[in-house]
Amino acid sequence: MSLKTLIDDNRTAVEADPAQAAAAFSVTGQLVGTTEVAIRAGGHQLTVDEPPVLGGADLGANPVEHALIALASCQAITYRFWAAQLGIELDGLEVVAEGDLDVRGFFGFDDSVRPGFTAVRLKVVPSGPESAERYQQLADAVDAHCPVLDLFSHTTPIERTMAVPA
Amino acid sequence: MSLKTLIDDNRTAVEADPAQAAAAFSVTGQLVGTTEVAIRAGGHQLTVDEPPVLGGADLGANPVEHALIALASCQAITYRFWAAQLGIELDGLEVVAEGDLDVRGFFGFDDSVRPGFTAVRLKVVPSGPESAERYQQLADAVDAHCPVLDLFSHTTPIERTMAVPA
Repeated sequence: MSLKTLIDDNRTAVEADPAQAAAAFSVTGQLVGTTEVAIRAGGHQLTVDEPPVLGGADLGANPVEHALIALASCQAITYRFWAAQLGIELDGLEVVAEGDLDVRGFFGFDDSVRPGFTAVRLKVVPSGPESAERYQQLADAVDAHCPVLDLFSHTTPIERTMAVPA
Repeated sequence: MSLKTLIDDNRTAVEADPAQAAAAFSVTGQLVGTTEVAIRAGGHQLTVDEPPVLGGADLGANPVEHALIALASCQAITYRFWAAQLGIELDGLEVVAEGDLDVRGFFGFDDSVRPGFTAVRLKVVPSGPESAERYQQLADAVDAHCPVLDLFSHTTPIERTMAVPA
């Protein structure tokens, strides 16, 4: 099935029953070493860790790298979907996502410094036979609809609960 | 080296030279299939993909799951660091991160719907010999200093560039 057909089928399903638009995702992490975290996400398992300079064994990319992985991959896939939607030919795509962090925020050395990224840079290089203008039109559509770019660019309501076993 | 020593050494280094606090992270993604994205993050490689219902082959967790992986693992590791900093014993930790999404935003069926998570829930279960009050104190310190929680909770400045090969 083409992505265009998949999108049209989704539109029909959601118009018939808006509840079909609701999707829920869940992942579980278990701290299994000093900084090693074993992750389950659906049927997938992976390891998140810190490099030795942060007390870990570098068994996987670290949490903030995973945030950049989410952003880079979401951009790439959103380019694919919106290229299909807009009828723009897309042969390939490379995305580089960079983030700057000031570790004084994380360590609490200076609480005027935010713990998260202070700046993020995205560099996207699409390839294919279309004009630069068409790819710019694609980029604009992608940036308006990319879920993880939206997460980075806006605030998200978070409910946090902690339970200590009795 | 204990985490407490690592934190103290970082404090000394950053106080001597604030430029030591600057950290930069970079990941690269390449669209190699319909929705398959090959990721390099430092020395680590992994695959991000969508499930068949979104046109992929489910070769890895998808982008929004990676955002939740970033959040869950960042919480876990920040608990570890702040437990060391506050002298709170922590034997283990489980984190569940859940996110709700309305796909009308991503597909552009309704532009009043945001493409990103509409709600995120975090459930943290620490284990160890300390009182519930001490773990609550730890949770408060973590939530004030967790880089990916900060990313979810606040807006981050993003610079985007697109280059079409000549």
